[in-house]
Amino acid sequence: MTTYLFPDKSEWGEIVKRPTFDNSQLRDLVSGLLQQIREGGDRVLKELEAKFDHCELQDLQVSEAEFEEARKEIDAELANAIDNASRNISRFHSAQSFSGVKVETQPGVVCWQKSVPIDRVGLYVPGGTAPLFSTVLMLAIPAKIAGCGEIVLCTPPNAQGKVNPAILYAATVAGVTKVYKVGGVQAIGAMAYGSESVPKVYKIFGPGNQFVQMAKQLVSLRDVAIDMPAGPSEVCVVADAEANPAYVASDFLSQAEHGADSQAILITDSEDLAKRFEQVMAEQLEKLHRQELTRKSLEHSKVIVLHTQDEVMELVNEYAPEHLILNTRNYLNLAEQVRNAGSVFLGPYSPESAGDYASGTNHTLPTNGYAKAYNGVNLDSYMRKITFQELTAAGLRSLGPVIEEMAQAEQLDAHKNAVTVRLKNL
Amino acid sequence: MTTYLFPDKSEWGEIVKRPTFDNSQLRDLVSGLLQQIREGGDRVLKELEAKFDHCELQDLQVSEAEFEEARKEIDAELANAIDNASRNISRFHSAQSFSGVKVETQPGVVCWQKSVPIDRVGLYVPGGTAPLFSTVLMLAIPAKIAGCGEIVLCTPPNAQGKVNPAILYAATVAGVTKVYKVGGVQAIGAMAYGSESVPKVYKIFGPGNQFVQMAKQLVSLRDVAIDMPAGPSEVCVVADAEANPAYVASDFLSQAEHGADSQAILITDSEDLAKRFEQVMAEQLEKLHRQELTRKSLEHSKVIVLHTQDEVMELVNEYAPEHLILNTRNYLNLAEQVRNAGSVFLGPYSPESAGDYASGTNHTLPTNGYAKAYNGVNLDSYMRKITFQELTAAGLRSLGPVIEEMAQAEQLDAHKNAVTVRLKNL
Repeated sequence: MTTYLFPDKSEWGEIVKRPTFDNSQLRDLVSGLLQQIREGGDRVLKELEAKFDHCELQDLQVSEAEFEEARKEIDAELANAIDNASRNISRFHSAQSFSGVKVETQPGVVCWQKSVPIDRVGLYVPGGTAPLFSTVLMLAIPAKIAGCGEIVLCTPPNAQGKVNPAILYAATVAGVTKVYKVGGVQAIGAMAYGSESVPKVYKIFGPGNQFVQMAKQLVSLRDVAIDMPAGPSEVCVVADAEANPAYVASDFLSQAEHGADSQAILITDSEDLAKRFEQVMAEQLEKLHRQELTRKSLEHSKVIVLHTQDEVMELVNEYAPEHLILNTRNYLNLAEQVRNAGSVFLGPYSPESAGDYASGTNHTLPTNGYAKAYNGVNLDSYMRKITFQELTAAGLRSLGPVIEEMAQAEQLDAHKNAVTVRLKNL
Repeated sequence: MTTYLFPDKSEWGEIVKRPTFDNSQLRDLVSGLLQQIREGGDRVLKELEAKFDHCELQDLQVSEAEFEEARKEIDAELANAIDNASRNISRFHSAQSFSGVKVETQPGVVCWQKSVPIDRVGLYVPGGTAPLFSTVLMLAIPAKIAGCGEIVLCTPPNAQGKVNPAILYAATVAGVTKVYKVGGVQAIGAMAYGSESVPKVYKIFGPGNQFVQMAKQLVSLRDVAIDMPAGPSEVCVVADAEANPAYVASDFLSQAEHGADSQAILITDSEDLAKRFEQVMAEQLEKLHRQELTRKSLEHSKVIVLHTQDEVMELVNEYAPEHLILNTRNYLNLAEQVRNAGSVFLGPYSPESAGDYASGTNHTLPTNGYAKAYNGVNLDSYMRKITFQELTAAGLRSLGPVIEEMAQAEQLDAHKNAVTVRLKNL
């Protein structure tokens, strides 16, 4: 961890830099796999599952019997928690629905937007040491609310060819029935091109390691849309002298445990808080299970002490964090100054883990400074706003000459003529 | 032009295929130019302007005196037309503003979205034979309404180092003051990386040739966001037996004149209309200036006759056109069936050129079937929806155990602990 005491503004550019990971050497490898999947379909998917997930699969699709089994196997307490989180996520995303208004821009010229769901979407849920069932909820619930016709979910199976029951339970709760045992680059290729088993989709959502991210980037150049580019997860905690250092430390560590490449930064106007935080954090760290990983991540974490809260917020906006926690007395005032962030957690009782799991907001958020241009996944991500316009004869009579004038100046004859032939007839 | 009479559904996949243009061989060339721009800044930009736009530039930025000159030079009729179009575009995009509602997902847990403008955006307006001042309006007006802090516009100068007065007038009307004489790959590189003159932006908008599109794709992999992937422009006209064939032909041709690679298709349930259309189109074509170009484009245009309007709309949704004109008696019913399209023009008096210029809708739209996953540029394109959440102590007390349960099941200790340390204190 590096501590910066009152750094000069000229140093800020360096401070907000993310650890960079050059993944260009993955390009050829991933591109080759995608080509194989495109050509070989299910056969190649099964071969690659055997190679990377060490399992022999007969069917790629999860059967009804497997869903049934998962419902029996899942712990009742966990099922209740998933139900509760699911209700909150559903409430928040339902409130995001859009209804366009008809605008008469001038007499007889009426324009409007209509929000229409994407017909086919694909969701990727990574495997790894723990089953990320929360990601199932975050990706599938808004897809269902949007009304997407086909929702496909891919996730890697274990060596016995099984998908974790919590994943299947979460899929059931979210209303997703088409789940496929395909992981990594295979999953992205399968959903981008389609195979005998896996339907082709128009947009792919979800996190993943650098292979998955490269695959998403490559298919997004031509074949499908993706939710957003991604990088390692990160949190920025803003705290003042009154913040409880134990809360700050716990938020910091909950980010750091994500992986060796995730980043936590604390920005404060209180040198004293920074000191107390470091002490408490060391104590909390001792009690955690993922200590080694967490320590690795802490190596590139930062504590920055600045003179004023205005400076603090300026640096926050330069950094553009995925998660921003404002744990200060006047957090509502600071919230007004947020220009660049993915999701913001306000006050002492809003830890990042609330939004990661259960409060209702989405946890699929822009990392790596992308919050300057992207937002997180929300209901809009599953829809498109199609524009409509209807001109009456009178509308065209008054607007027509404007169109003709402009088309002529752009030397687009036929564009002008499309108006002229109509005006002649009126 | 190819005519398909009642094609079998098995042929539809072939019919909706776009002419493909492999631009992968451009990658190295464009990538090399971008690297030069990144390293050399203004010096390289000027060298490339001399090479590609044949002009020697002292300053890249358009001066106040040049703006003044443009205001004097522009034709009064054209200025009035631009003013009128600008008012309509402004009205329609202003009506798209969003205000998030606070949602109490469960007692003491409040979540909301806030729409915040992107700080810095870059607009690209291509040169070519005609000055595309309409694109200035379409890209700059919503940026201004959104409240983007810095709006940068790049456009290639002519051989005398001047920007067309209509472009500068449109920029003035839209409220854009930072205009740079930089075109093509240079413009995309300048806005993606910044140079001594041109500010770096976070998102780049605008059309362009295949070099520009490749440059946008390359910079979007790492450095900035872009509006959407792009391909040649296209229209799909749906007409029935009652449609005026002269209107249909004029809309068809106004798309075809865009360029040799643009595509127009007519889908109808009336064989008779299809015949009358072909005859009228041949007559209209004779009178156009851009005949050669238009004929080239017509080579890959298509007329498809189907049995029923339901089939017609099914094929429309498979094709997912950038522009869709519904010129039928029951056009409002058909409009309800549109699932995939960029912008839809309803009835006999709504030619595509209305939306291209002046009705108020945006003309920056998804081509190449991308309408299945993307929408056109709108006010949202210039903003991000940041989520906020605030839990009260009581809120965390009731939601906390849910978070703890889920974090534990995902084996994320520190996530759980961020709740536990707070609950202990309550």
